Amino acid sequence: MGETSHFTNPKSLAVIGASNTPGKIGNALVKNLIESGYKGKIYPVNHKEKEVLGLPSFPSITEIPDDIETAIFVVPAKKVLDAALECGKKGVKNLVVITAGFKEIGRAGAELEKEFLAICRQYNMRMLGPNCVGFIDTHTPINATFLKGFPPKGEIAFISQSGAILASILDWSQTAGIGYSRIFSLGNKADLSEVDFIAEAADDPNTKVILCYIEDVAHGPEFLKTVSEATKKKPVVILKSGTSQSGALAASSHTGALAGSNLAYDTAFKRCGVLRVSSMSELLDLAIAFADQPVPKGDRVAVVTNSGGPGIIATDKAELNGLQMARFSKETIEELRSYLPAEAGIYNPVDVLGDAKADRFRFALEKVFKDENVDSIALLLCPVAVTEPLETAQALIELSREYPEKTVIAAYMGGQALAEGAKLLTDNGIPCFAMPEPAIAVIAGMSSYRKMKERAVARQKAEDVKPDQKTVKAVFYDVSRDNRLALLGSEASEVIEAYGVAVAPTALSQSPDEAAEIAEEMGYPVVLKIASPKILHKTDVGGVIAGLQSSEEVKNAYVNIMETVHRYLPNVVPYGIEIQKMVPKGIELIVGMTRDVQFGPMVGFGLGGIFVNLIKDVSFRLANGLTSEEIAEMISETKAYMLLKGYRGDKPADIAAISEVIRRVAILARDFPEITEIDINPVFAYEKGVAALDVKITLS
Amino acid sequence: MGETSHFTNPKSLAVIGASNTPGKIGNALVKNLIESGYKGKIYPVNHKEKEVLGLPSFPSITEIPDDIETAIFVVPAKKVLDAALECGKKGVKNLVVITAGFKEIGRAGAELEKEFLAICRQYNMRMLGPNCVGFIDTHTPINATFLKGFPPKGEIAFISQSGAILASILDWSQTAGIGYSRIFSLGNKADLSEVDFIAEAADDPNTKVILCYIEDVAHGPEFLKTVSEATKKKPVVILKSGTSQSGALAASSHTGALAGSNLAYDTAFKRCGVLRVSSMSELLDLAIAFADQPVPKGDRVAVVTNSGGPGIIATDKAELNGLQMARFSKETIEELRSYLPAEAGIYNPVDVLGDAKADRFRFALEKVFKDENVDSIALLLCPVAVTEPLETAQALIELSREYPEKTVIAAYMGGQALAEGAKLLTDNGIPCFAMPEPAIAVIAGMSSYRKMKERAVARQKAEDVKPDQKTVKAVFYDVSRDNRLALLGSEASEVIEAYGVAVAPTALSQSPDEAAEIAEEMGYPVVLKIASPKILHKTDVGGVIAGLQSSEEVKNAYVNIMETVHRYLPNVVPYGIEIQKMVPKGIELIVGMTRDVQFGPMVGFGLGGIFVNLIKDVSFRLANGLTSEEIAEMISETKAYMLLKGYRGDKPADIAAISEVIRRVAILARDFPEITEIDINPVFAYEKGVAALDVKITLS
Repeated sequence: MGETSHFTNPKSLAVIGASNTPGKIGNALVKNLIESGYKGKIYPVNHKEKEVLGLPSFPSITEIPDDIETAIFVVPAKKVLDAALECGKKGVKNLVVITAGFKEIGRAGAELEKEFLAICRQYNMRMLGPNCVGFIDTHTPINATFLKGFPPKGEIAFISQSGAILASILDWSQTAGIGYSRIFSLGNKADLSEVDFIAEAADDPNTKVILCYIEDVAHGPEFLKTVSEATKKKPVVILKSGTSQSGALAASSHTGALAGSNLAYDTAFKRCGVLRVSSMSELLDLAIAFADQPVPKGDRVAVVTNSGGPGIIATDKAELNGLQMARFSKETIEELRSYLPAEAGIYNPVDVLGDAKADRFRFALEKVFKDENVDSIALLLCPVAVTEPLETAQALIELSREYPEKTVIAAYMGGQALAEGAKLLTDNGIPCFAMPEPAIAVIAGMSSYRKMKERAVARQKAEDVKPDQKTVKAVFYDVSRDNRLALLGSEASEVIEAYGVAVAPTALSQSPDEAAEIAEEMGYPVVLKIASPKILHKTDVGGVIAGLQSSEEVKNAYVNIMETVHRYLPNVVPYGIEIQKMVPKGIELIVGMTRDVQFGPMVGFGLGGIFVNLIKDVSFRLANGLTSEEIAEMISETKAYMLLKGYRGDKPADIAAISEVIRRVAILARDFPEITEIDINPVFAYEKGVAALDVKITLS
Repeated sequence: MGETSHFTNPKSLAVIGASNTPGKIGNALVKNLIESGYKGKIYPVNHKEKEVLGLPSFPSITEIPDDIETAIFVVPAKKVLDAALECGKKGVKNLVVITAGFKEIGRAGAELEKEFLAICRQYNMRMLGPNCVGFIDTHTPINATFLKGFPPKGEIAFISQSGAILASILDWSQTAGIGYSRIFSLGNKADLSEVDFIAEAADDPNTKVILCYIEDVAHGPEFLKTVSEATKKKPVVILKSGTSQSGALAASSHTGALAGSNLAYDTAFKRCGVLRVSSMSELLDLAIAFADQPVPKGDRVAVVTNSGGPGIIATDKAELNGLQMARFSKETIEELRSYLPAEAGIYNPVDVLGDAKADRFRFALEKVFKDENVDSIALLLCPVAVTEPLETAQALIELSREYPEKTVIAAYMGGQALAEGAKLLTDNGIPCFAMPEPAIAVIAGMSSYRKMKERAVARQKAEDVKPDQKTVKAVFYDVSRDNRLALLGSEASEVIEAYGVAVAPTALSQSPDEAAEIAEEMGYPVVLKIASPKILHKTDVGGVIAGLQSSEEVKNAYVNIMETVHRYLPNVVPYGIEIQKMVPKGIELIVGMTRDVQFGPMVGFGLGGIFVNLIKDVSFRLANGLTSEEIAEMISETKAYMLLKGYRGDKPADIAAISEVIRRVAILARDFPEITEIDINPVFAYEKGVAALDVKITLS
């Protein structure tokens, strides 16, 4: 994103719509620019005024006798097109469009936004907004917003799709004394979006952690590419709202019904290494922790407290969030035992007791910091009679400096009595909460980031396969000539077999004699199934007869099925009857694929059979670029994995073969974007190999 | 709990160990008593001083020329027994024992505590503590603690097993201006415990909501009885820490392995109508909401905001927490449409837009309050340019007074800019949070309380059954004579059959001929299973042969099983071989029972078969006093319920018969406390009736 690299540090600025009238946005904005200490040149543009807030004003941008890098728009919507043209001619690089009245007000606004964007494209200008509140960089420094106040300098970048939430966060942070490096309001995201500013912040030396509030992602593939790179450099924490599942109801396949857009975001964030949070507090808590503390080297957390209760609460929370309570070395335990009172807790959590002053806290903390089995430390302090919150804070700060590689978080559990100590901690880079739970939660969140990064490093793209694309194309051609979107079972089987997935032999017959002939060739037993894309639940209409052992039985079954189905569904004309060789029962699995409008194909894997929607034991990954490690992860996340490993003394199943099925389904989805959904349910897994039984494929 | 009714308002008090030395607990305590404005008489007891803090002091309680209702102990542990005896002789009713050095320091302390308690019992004195920080009642008023500060008067009762957490909450609340009615520190709970003070607070007219922090429950049955009554009167919100699952690992049955102590607490709390929270913030947030606002009459929440983002966040949270977004009446929508700007959100959430001043907020709120489809209202306000937080607060307060039956919660999302408005709201009884999520969370929590209460009213104890106890006793007699704890399958089947549960015919044979004879009588097909309580997984050692169709096959199978099992387990001497008539396959369920040390027997129900531990679809209820409604609830909570209702066109199963099995297992557990665990897995459910196949019963 070389094009936006001057966004936060422009050499010169024009404010189109600058105003001398207090209360107007064009006034607040120029005032903010001046007061922020911005060192570039500011050129107000206002066709009535000679001066705006002491700066010489120009009737039009074209009349400014200087190059303009960035233009900020605060004019009414009806004037933006003319102003944009002038900016283009003037050679402006970047537009920051505060002006509202575009896509957000409906069709007419959307049209205007389109025209506006076209002018930007024509003159090679980039646009932030429209309908945004601007941006801030505390290091430049520059405040190109109309908001009240300017946050302290800090290392948190915040990118928000909601201007109001940005205003909230800013006000909240100023009160709490939390610093930011950069802040962007995205507005309607007509041109630039979260990906651009995430990419830039990832390379910004003043930024340690990137926060986002978003309601959607503008460009799925770009997001995946850019954000995957960004998370390798620094943590990206996202609050994505709009998690309603209603969108998922329309899907026609099992896999599709289980997925839905919220899960697609989860899957995409997992791929990119994004930390997804579910509340604003979590977002801010994690931001503070990442900004001030190192990412823990491992999952082993030590808790030091002056009371049993918070110690238990912290232990519960640690277990719940996948952390480990550190097991101290013998030496640590002996040292703690030798000095602390007999009733103290010397294992983890360390309880220095209610009568502990700062010296006892210091002693215990020292031993815990020193212990190599400890990756992170949570200090939980209650305001009991003799507590010395300030001196205890001092001890923690000193030890934290001595052991800079250990992550340190505090909870000063109280209000006024502990305020001074808590402030000393936060002023010295130790995040301090009022409750024990968020202290443990941020350690867990930071550890998740470390694990995601480790996994990302381990990943290598899986090898490609050489499928028989011709067969697939031929099948699709027949289907399209037949004006269908759903493949018959025999066709779907042919398609996945062409991609190297083992299928129970399946063929279509159109008469009792043909059926018998095919069965003779396959060998017995066989199962007969009605062939019609219009019949979803074949068993329910008498469309399936299994366990047939001879050609006679096959012929009878053929007639039988046709008659029964006709009674149930007199208006459906079946394509014939499918004959499938019956294979031994294995572990019933489902492998499937569905497409997300933003992030493309996703593969799913889990327990199969008729209860798949009941048990919902299905994990998903993005199909494109799927790695062997991701396949291993998605298998191991499911309950099916317990079965595959060998449940209660059973022999393990052929996990390698199952992995191949997932991989090949992903490649099929990539090669044929016209496939909207795939369901293989069940696919049987055996000690050796697999067999796909029932395959459904739908085209767009 | 008539005995504790004067705890919070004693006529007269002695402080044994009162002191003039600042910094001593005996000094802080007397000072707190005086400063709290306590109107009863305070008698310091100190054998060296003439006066303590201006009050005449006595060398011993026996020398006080007045009746003493309550004695507060701050003497060292070694003096408590003598002091207790003197109190007994003096006729003291209640002891508040701050003194530490009892059970919490180990064996010697536990002994001392026992002796202390014995003296209390002898003289009919009740004890709070020992090792507690005392109690507070702001309405009496009295501060019988040594903590700093006295909370404002309020309607929240707080009962804490941790003195330090109490100190935290107190400090935190004083800073936030949150009022309390009563506060109790439970200490070691040698005598009085949470149940006593919950019961008392339930009858206290100054208390609207009861909060507890506990680490365990002292008396399970008493807790169940007392707290069930309390929750009918007012909400009881509990943070129970110590949720580690490690305790559950030792269980030997499926049902036991799924349960564990944390689940037992969940089950008990559900029975009592307790709201269980999982963090300190939730505890406090809910307390404030219950204290200040009415419980919502229904689940329908309306959200009014000046920004889209928080509206979406609130909608997500509402859906996640089981609330419904209210659907406004046509009239409301029309009125909103006619007045609000075109771009405003007029459905739910109502978005009055960023440029809304207080008048627009007031208009929208008015319409929403008036709408009969709305039970609760969340106002979410962001500090954008023109926002009028104070005037908007005023509008909300006025409307809330006009519609006192509607629940109102606010989120003023910001810091300093909104502080004044937020304070106005809280001062006027409208809880105000800094983030949108807790605003919705408390509405959801309050709604849960309403639903629990409704359910509690609907409940009636299920009818009793008349079981054949003689048969059960005879079986247990045989088992005990045999020095076994585990019943054979045939024995266990006999036991549950005696309680009216339909079982597939099962009998024990001890020779091939006997087996054949039994099979002939039963009718074919039959299955043969090795009979030995030492063999848990019979299939794994070749101990099961199914599908036998003739006496010849039965005889062969008998020999076959015996030989194979002997090869696998040469040291096990089987009891013989069980013959079971094979019954048609139904829906595989599990019904079981396990015992919790605190809350007694719990019944479990869910999806059965070999995957029960894999899928963990089992819900639990307390067996004693189990109602038909609870049985219906526990069935409908499981995924199995989807199957029972008729999955994908299947006919529904006999849910009444399954309910009966659960009910009868509960009664069996009540009648025979020596049964520690029951597993019926599977029990097949049919369109009509059920059949238990594999029954395991373990005795203590």
